Amino acid sequence: MRQSQLFSKPKKEAPKEAETISHRLLVRADFIDQLSSGVYSFLPLGKRVHDKIEKIIREEMLNLGAQEIYLPVLIPKNLWQITERWEKIEPPLFKLKDIHGKEFGLGPTHEEVITELVRTRIKSYKDLPLYLFQIQSKFRNEMRPTGGLLRVREFIMKDLYSFHQTKEDALNFYQKVKNAYFKIFKRCGLKKVICVEAEPGTIGGELSHEFMVLAENGEDSLFLCQKCGFALKTEKNLCPKCRGKLEKKNCIEIGHIFYLGEKYSQAMGANFIDKEGKKSPIIMGCYGIGIGRLMASIVEVFHDQKGMIWPKEIAPFSIHLISLLPSEKQNLAEKIYQDLKKREIEILYDDRPDKTAGEKFAEADLIGIPYRVVMSGRTLKKGSVELKRRDSYKTQLVKIQKLKEILKNDK
Amino acid sequence: MRQSQLFSKPKKEAPKEAETISHRLLVRADFIDQLSSGVYSFLPLGKRVHDKIEKIIREEMLNLGAQEIYLPVLIPKNLWQITERWEKIEPPLFKLKDIHGKEFGLGPTHEEVITELVRTRIKSYKDLPLYLFQIQSKFRNEMRPTGGLLRVREFIMKDLYSFHQTKEDALNFYQKVKNAYFKIFKRCGLKKVICVEAEPGTIGGELSHEFMVLAENGEDSLFLCQKCGFALKTEKNLCPKCRGKLEKKNCIEIGHIFYLGEKYSQAMGANFIDKEGKKSPIIMGCYGIGIGRLMASIVEVFHDQKGMIWPKEIAPFSIHLISLLPSEKQNLAEKIYQDLKKREIEILYDDRPDKTAGEKFAEADLIGIPYRVVMSGRTLKKGSVELKRRDSYKTQLVKIQKLKEILKNDK
Repeated sequence: MRQSQLFSKPKKEAPKEAETISHRLLVRADFIDQLSSGVYSFLPLGKRVHDKIEKIIREEMLNLGAQEIYLPVLIPKNLWQITERWEKIEPPLFKLKDIHGKEFGLGPTHEEVITELVRTRIKSYKDLPLYLFQIQSKFRNEMRPTGGLLRVREFIMKDLYSFHQTKEDALNFYQKVKNAYFKIFKRCGLKKVICVEAEPGTIGGELSHEFMVLAENGEDSLFLCQKCGFALKTEKNLCPKCRGKLEKKNCIEIGHIFYLGEKYSQAMGANFIDKEGKKSPIIMGCYGIGIGRLMASIVEVFHDQKGMIWPKEIAPFSIHLISLLPSEKQNLAEKIYQDLKKREIEILYDDRPDKTAGEKFAEADLIGIPYRVVMSGRTLKKGSVELKRRDSYKTQLVKIQKLKEILKNDK
Repeated sequence: MRQSQLFSKPKKEAPKEAETISHRLLVRADFIDQLSSGVYSFLPLGKRVHDKIEKIIREEMLNLGAQEIYLPVLIPKNLWQITERWEKIEPPLFKLKDIHGKEFGLGPTHEEVITELVRTRIKSYKDLPLYLFQIQSKFRNEMRPTGGLLRVREFIMKDLYSFHQTKEDALNFYQKVKNAYFKIFKRCGLKKVICVEAEPGTIGGELSHEFMVLAENGEDSLFLCQKCGFALKTEKNLCPKCRGKLEKKNCIEIGHIFYLGEKYSQAMGANFIDKEGKKSPIIMGCYGIGIGRLMASIVEVFHDQKGMIWPKEIAPFSIHLISLLPSEKQNLAEKIYQDLKKREIEILYDDRPDKTAGEKFAEADLIGIPYRVVMSGRTLKKGSVELKRRDSYKTQLVKIQKLKEILKNDK
């Protein structure tokens, strides 16, 4: 895509209230725009990253054998009352009335809706296990949204729900989801993710784990054993596993999984007939990843003073192609752009004639596309372009024909 | 996917209140589930069709040069007040207050939000034209939702917004969108779509067109010239183009486009500096397609007494593979399934041992996948399967190896 036509317009200044790095950088690079406290629009660059994270998550959910569905935002009050969450859920529900006075809550999570769907469809052990997921808008009536995309009121979440005959089967699947989550985070560039036992909160259930990424500005914290790497959320003098020394670390929660057991199935009468002909409540689990929060967390981990540094698989584009050619030689740049496009490389092409090299480089560093490719009179004289990785200071001249191969082999 | 694992469970009966064919069939085949009046969940089969329609629309939007964004559902009251739509919009807004008492409307459309984004980014004629679209949840506080997905309170819409220097350029693009819409509907199987001038309503603007598909149960109507094919929404004795006879037809609106002119840009101060250095309001257009409604309209057009008949490009699966083999020979069916899967054909495989052939055929007809492929002792003896198009009564025996080629060449 031509940068002259790109709607996202990087800014020199971040909003004053922006306290976290990800908030400042995502707003400055115009990936997102705040409409109201904790409510953001995703502009083209931000939408592209969001989509790529969504794609990774969807692939790993399908790999688990999950089926994709799409549940409504408007959830009637009576469903929330069955599980006593109409008043109790934290943060509170956004509540509203329709034209007839009927009350609804905007879904922050969908245990009630999905348990009701399953209750009326699953009869027998033969229908289990069952895994259903969606990627859909969620709402939280947060008192104090903070940190840009880190704590918001409206966001897109992947929520997976699983249904089982036995606790054993459910815990087995819980472990599979754990592995899938590590894989998702790794594909998003986060290799050091810590899984730690957590409080189930108002989602409930018997067991829950949070996935944490270490980050200086994280508003969460955990205690990490310096010896064996075990992590826990509550302070203890020594590691309960190896009695090593614990160190407090700031972190951000990027995923949360719950073994729900019979909490929802019992309250809502979601039963199945087992092999012996006995009726039992279905055993459940649920598993969430907030996509905007994950995106912001990745920025908290991958950035420098100049801007963001996107991991390859989720970068908005693969190459930032920058032309420093005078306008009369612009057709050479154009040819290289068209040629790379044909090879199905995703390119942001800075074709703007009215920007200086310094401005173009500064914006490229801010946006953080993995590879910067510069065309100038000097490079083209040698039939080459200048290649630079966003995460390195080194530049190299490479022949245009070899660019794709070099990028492909670069780790 | 194996039908034994499919969450969607077809039903014998439709809900009593279901008046339209699409409502009855989509609920019976378990594509959708009603959570509340005008509020539906999309189950796996319905989600797959919805996704395919989304994909077609996204491709055609990108072909127009539009950039994808994602705007929030929660829109603050003050934005609606600038354009005086907080009270006036029809159907009314769903309104709610946050924890601090601040008021929001759930977006049924996003003119205000997008005009504000554009106002703060577009300065010069060089930034125009600009086309932005999203595929996102919309809300309407309808008094009487009806017809299943035809008139709902929550739905996913594609909304495209365009920004221009001149009326001429805007009307030019308006025509391009018209053509893109015809292409979208054609790819969705709807070849006879009628574009008719309409009232702009509370979206406003100077000119608007609706895209209509003729359907017996359509709650809209138009007057169609029997001679020249011209259509209009208001009754006249004779065609204003050729004085031919007009006939009243029931129809469903599946798309609506608006030439907005300066309505929103003037109210919100979204101006640009033109080539002469003069400041002028940006000229706008907006263009919508409700995806669930389009899906239901397609069912209104393509069905028979037995069920739905999905056009190829949006069918939930390409092949409904049905095994009538006894369980001891099930491994033969399994092999064919695995083999077809490897060839990247989307298959729903009816592997259920406890259903009769009659039950399987009836469900296949209800779900409406374009091709039914039956494996039985009789067909396998001849190294063949029985192929039947959903829209035909004819069956033919085809060699398994030739199946993919036959499907590919079948029009």
